[in-house]
Amino acid sequence: MKHSAYFSANVHSALKHDPPGAWMPHVPEGCIRLSSGFPDSSLVPVEELKQSAVHLLDEERDLPMHYIGSPQIEKLHIQLLERMNERNISVKREELLITSGACQAIDLIARILMDEETYIIVESPTYMEALEIFQNYTDRILTVPVDQHGLNTDMLEVLLVTRKQNGKPMPRVLYTIPTFQNPTGTTMSETRRKHLLNLASVYDFLVMEDDAYGELHFNEPMPTLKSLDREGRVLYVGSLSKVVAPGMRIGWVAADREWIQALFRFKKDLDHPFAQSVMATFLAGVDWKSHLQSCRAVYNAKCRTMTDALAAHMPSNVSWTKPDGGYFIWLTATGVDTAELLNKATKAGVSYIPGKHFCLEQEYGQDKLRLSFSAAGEEEIEQGVRRLAEFLGRR
Amino acid sequence: MKHSAYFSANVHSALKHDPPGAWMPHVPEGCIRLSSGFPDSSLVPVEELKQSAVHLLDEERDLPMHYIGSPQIEKLHIQLLERMNERNISVKREELLITSGACQAIDLIARILMDEETYIIVESPTYMEALEIFQNYTDRILTVPVDQHGLNTDMLEVLLVTRKQNGKPMPRVLYTIPTFQNPTGTTMSETRRKHLLNLASVYDFLVMEDDAYGELHFNEPMPTLKSLDREGRVLYVGSLSKVVAPGMRIGWVAADREWIQALFRFKKDLDHPFAQSVMATFLAGVDWKSHLQSCRAVYNAKCRTMTDALAAHMPSNVSWTKPDGGYFIWLTATGVDTAELLNKATKAGVSYIPGKHFCLEQEYGQDKLRLSFSAAGEEEIEQGVRRLAEFLGRR
Repeated sequence: MKHSAYFSANVHSALKHDPPGAWMPHVPEGCIRLSSGFPDSSLVPVEELKQSAVHLLDEERDLPMHYIGSPQIEKLHIQLLERMNERNISVKREELLITSGACQAIDLIARILMDEETYIIVESPTYMEALEIFQNYTDRILTVPVDQHGLNTDMLEVLLVTRKQNGKPMPRVLYTIPTFQNPTGTTMSETRRKHLLNLASVYDFLVMEDDAYGELHFNEPMPTLKSLDREGRVLYVGSLSKVVAPGMRIGWVAADREWIQALFRFKKDLDHPFAQSVMATFLAGVDWKSHLQSCRAVYNAKCRTMTDALAAHMPSNVSWTKPDGGYFIWLTATGVDTAELLNKATKAGVSYIPGKHFCLEQEYGQDKLRLSFSAAGEEEIEQGVRRLAEFLGRR
Repeated sequence: MKHSAYFSANVHSALKHDPPGAWMPHVPEGCIRLSSGFPDSSLVPVEELKQSAVHLLDEERDLPMHYIGSPQIEKLHIQLLERMNERNISVKREELLITSGACQAIDLIARILMDEETYIIVESPTYMEALEIFQNYTDRILTVPVDQHGLNTDMLEVLLVTRKQNGKPMPRVLYTIPTFQNPTGTTMSETRRKHLLNLASVYDFLVMEDDAYGELHFNEPMPTLKSLDREGRVLYVGSLSKVVAPGMRIGWVAADREWIQALFRFKKDLDHPFAQSVMATFLAGVDWKSHLQSCRAVYNAKCRTMTDALAAHMPSNVSWTKPDGGYFIWLTATGVDTAELLNKATKAGVSYIPGKHFCLEQEYGQDKLRLSFSAAGEEEIEQGVRRLAEFLGRR
């Protein structure tokens, strides 16, 4: 039986690309994982989530175990609206869709906006799962570089002007992680944010804002694109994975009602009553500001440990970004092929993600790599960076 | 801003149909819900699931709260394989994908098999969520009637022969709920099962077997299509929603490795570590056979209560199916428009789903309706049927 003969056009197009997760490094037991974008173990509120589950089921019995019925699901919507409101994102109830993590949110948005004819723009480098998702829909992906101030909107403007002048098809949507970007850790400046939204208006495209890390700022927070948007062009993606726990799979989209209604049509895993109700119960009981402050303090300290270690140990051909929040540092090792080196590095006890996996044009990422300071302990970070430094000298 | 100008081809095609859940009746407070396909409240193992959550988090701490790491997710795969094995479905680890309920499984299968050019076959009547899902992909949907012995495979053969003779495009996949069908409650005979698989082989199509109710048999179980399949043509969809709890959102696909790999490519909500780990912990501790026996006994008794009440109260123009398991009874009220009647019925205190929502050609369902005996209590069932009987006389 030739299975591929039965595949839809969707699959034939997607099969041109690597399968999901092909970029994930094999990490041997005992290796220091500077590859993992996991939250710090001590910041995951296990005890509180456990108590929330117990309290919920004691109070509501089987209600959160059915398709509908638990009032907690509506409560979670209100909590997310309130949390966004505190960050000046003012959306109504019908402008919110809860998803199973940011990944599903990105996938659903791609589904309603992209088909094989659609041109889109992504940052270079960008979140590799998002790239995998978009490649399930279209091959017409354009890239614009990210530098220390985030997406380079001047280069974006050049791209748009040139395409317009040459009568080329214009992009429908731009995907960005403006704040503490994955993988670079850099943040788009406010000037560039406004420039981006202006370009979106002039050249008539939409902006998908992935804000998974936005609350983890070490200094003054940056306004979200959504809060600056006056035209309804921004589809905002939020997540509790980085600030509570990824295993709960709670993300969301905040966008105009028309987008939300279209997204809902394609969201076929339904609500997740148990997980969502446990989360609502947890959020109702937690001191959110103090929880976030703990997160920021821990990640800030770990980030400093990593940048100190990098400064102390790295050879002169290596440079790196200095994040103002989030989970990641992006490292450039001039003259080094980071993908080729990975096997050696994991054997020596330190893992990372080679830069090429974040780049549509993989050669741009050849001498880059992503380090995560979120999951490893302070000593591990110091030791991992030290180990890595031994390999990164110019060959 | 004209939102629809940015929609993908997917959305434009899907928007021709009703939005999801448009069929759901408005059920006033206090109304007897014979519309709800929910499990019986007393059969939802709330206490055991609670203890499982507590035990899991005490033992594993934050492991089930990350993207990966908990051994429970692998354990759940093994448990599902073992459970299928006991029902003579022998599949390997790489032939299994856990999904967020059967709905997501059906959606993912549709995604890899269907595009707008694809012809498919569904039963008439059929599960309305499945119909909604398929209509997101294709309008080329053919139907074959279901009678008291399930899908009428003779009529299926006539359809196939005729299309072949006339040089018409042939269907790629047939969707069936062979056992205790939703909405009719009927079961495909073994002869028809073999006939169906033979037709699939001769006319080269695939079979999507939705077995959400299969374990809830009141008498001897029927072999699944998957267990009779010798060519890898059956993509099997399982679910714990009807035998444990829908709020946990655990379903799966069992099918050839090539299908599973393609499905995985489009499953972008990732694993659900917390929910899946709680379920694995629950399954490890429960006496599954005795749990299933309780479920069967309760639903059998409720089904008998409903058929007894129907026999006692219904006027002569009303007939109904006699299920051998599952949740549903399908009722025909000759001369009655069940959709038109619904408002009156819910005001009088009883709800149902009008037959037209289960039918692609809605006129076929006009004098039909679905009753569920799973959620309501025995007294409610008796009273609900009695109330309904007052409305169903020929007009």
